[in-house]
Amino acid sequence: MKVHNFSAGPCILPQVVFEKMAEACLNFNNSGTSILEISHRRKDAVEVIDTARALVKELMNVPDSHDVLFMQGGASLQFPTVAYNLLKEGGKAAYLDSGKWAANAIKEAKRFGDIEVVASSKADNYNHVPKGYEIPTDVDYFHCTSNNTIFGTQMKEFPTANVPLVCDMSSDILSKHVDVSQFGVIYAGAQKNMGPAGSAVAIVQKDLLGKTGRNIPDYLNYATHIAKESSFNTWPVIAVYGVMENLKWLKEQGGVEAIAKINTAKAETMYAEIDRNGLFTGTANVEDRSQMNATFVLNKEELKAEFDALLKEAGVVSLAGHRDVGGYRASMYNALPLESVQVLVEVMKQFEQKFG
Amino acid sequence: MKVHNFSAGPCILPQVVFEKMAEACLNFNNSGTSILEISHRRKDAVEVIDTARALVKELMNVPDSHDVLFMQGGASLQFPTVAYNLLKEGGKAAYLDSGKWAANAIKEAKRFGDIEVVASSKADNYNHVPKGYEIPTDVDYFHCTSNNTIFGTQMKEFPTANVPLVCDMSSDILSKHVDVSQFGVIYAGAQKNMGPAGSAVAIVQKDLLGKTGRNIPDYLNYATHIAKESSFNTWPVIAVYGVMENLKWLKEQGGVEAIAKINTAKAETMYAEIDRNGLFTGTANVEDRSQMNATFVLNKEELKAEFDALLKEAGVVSLAGHRDVGGYRASMYNALPLESVQVLVEVMKQFEQKFG
Repeated sequence: MKVHNFSAGPCILPQVVFEKMAEACLNFNNSGTSILEISHRRKDAVEVIDTARALVKELMNVPDSHDVLFMQGGASLQFPTVAYNLLKEGGKAAYLDSGKWAANAIKEAKRFGDIEVVASSKADNYNHVPKGYEIPTDVDYFHCTSNNTIFGTQMKEFPTANVPLVCDMSSDILSKHVDVSQFGVIYAGAQKNMGPAGSAVAIVQKDLLGKTGRNIPDYLNYATHIAKESSFNTWPVIAVYGVMENLKWLKEQGGVEAIAKINTAKAETMYAEIDRNGLFTGTANVEDRSQMNATFVLNKEELKAEFDALLKEAGVVSLAGHRDVGGYRASMYNALPLESVQVLVEVMKQFEQKFG
Repeated sequence: MKVHNFSAGPCILPQVVFEKMAEACLNFNNSGTSILEISHRRKDAVEVIDTARALVKELMNVPDSHDVLFMQGGASLQFPTVAYNLLKEGGKAAYLDSGKWAANAIKEAKRFGDIEVVASSKADNYNHVPKGYEIPTDVDYFHCTSNNTIFGTQMKEFPTANVPLVCDMSSDILSKHVDVSQFGVIYAGAQKNMGPAGSAVAIVQKDLLGKTGRNIPDYLNYATHIAKESSFNTWPVIAVYGVMENLKWLKEQGGVEAIAKINTAKAETMYAEIDRNGLFTGTANVEDRSQMNATFVLNKEELKAEFDALLKEAGVVSLAGHRDVGGYRASMYNALPLESVQVLVEVMKQFEQKFG
């Protein structure tokens, strides 16, 4: 039976990525060796990371002022890395608290300096993205989270600030157009729209670096990875290979603009049913609804077993909501076909016919 | 033609690891989903990291005083991590400078406190492991590197110290017996005897933690990873899966004691030929020769093209020495069969017959 995989991440990737990675594990580029047993400095391995970098640059239209880095440790390691690189000794930074990962970024930054939280939606269990805040002009940077995976909210626009804008785009990078030149740093764990778990990307405005006065460990220093073209130490070869193949696929789909249209169609289909169907309620404020993660609850919790049975029958998997929200979460990343959303909507309609 | 892969790392792994990883990319445990598209918190994914951890504990006989952590960033990120976790604010640590990676570990630790280098073989281009040094008793820990991949030297025994012993075992972990209870921390990038590039292991004595007075970023805090059983954030699923399969293979070979015998046989075969053959000279002091990496140079550099041609003809690949030593380096990690060493020795003999 066909599986419809709504996992919040690591998540569905294009079938061709699975196939290419499997092939590379056995016989990389028809070289007679596995990609897992070759030096990351061998010419054909270097080509992988160079191609992945070039594809990020091309697909996101990254200006020459910025460089694209592949690192490890996910967004969680980017939290202190950002502070190490941009928050001056004795300096101050502003953060927007729009969800659990934003709060984690704040927690880590507080180890490094004075953090001003400009606004928070925590009191409303992060059901919206705070708005109407002011960004101080005396801070080293402003940090926000573009998409809040757990709560199903997403920033529809980014503030203009007189300070560098830093954004955790882990769960919506490459899902729609963003103007990279607006940002000082964009970072993302790979395991949503970028590729398999095991690598992270950072897009860094080069002239912001080297100003904090901090003694930064080499691995956490963006300047190291820029100077070494992300080969400061052994990079996660199979993970970056997966990123490269995933980005090739995205390019073949027509790139970010083309996928954004499909993502919009999926989200509209999903939210239309949540709003139409009397048995469900969306948990995020309508204006801030995420195109990546639609969160909703059953109005009659006692019908959960019945709904879950219908989902299972239809092959819909990994729809459970995060424990902080409960209910359900339909994650609709780039590789999820519209058809899977249609199947889910069909299940919700069947459920209504039986129990509505 | 059969390839004999002497790569220094990422390096040869057992064929079954390549096959299992390829299969998991397409259909993980016959679940109908790829291992690349499932949550790292799904039950069958958690089983992977639990099994990998249990296998490290079993194969290395890790005592209950220690825990086994999977992290990202390789040994290079462990350098500052060790200092963050063990070097007190205003404290002091002792380091042995036995090679380039040891020197890098020293460089990173110096950002955190007063580092005493107890001995160095740098002046001799690291052709031996320093001995006869004293470890101060007023330091927070003593750090050494068990095997120096670039220079082909290896510690044959570890000093007894009154302070915690910390060891970078990236290039010889699991190749022979070590008494884990002797060590405060053992760490290793995976990409030699542990598995594919993209994860690192740390074996940490739990009661050493929490004493530095430092405000440690969560990702760099061993205590975080102990508390969260290495699932603090998304771990590199396919890389850890490779580690698990590689450790299963090692267990099937009879474990560390059994592989150590084969490693000794490989090293003896290799060094016997280096010493016998008048066209080559080993670069490391005999008493410190590594069982993992045999470094040697041609006595007549002008014959390099001829020797390289013979290597190519025999399918011997990735034998080039590191630029800091030159010549050749035969890396003989666990998965390299004795047969490959025999083929290389045969080539060296042919070469001698033609040009000796």
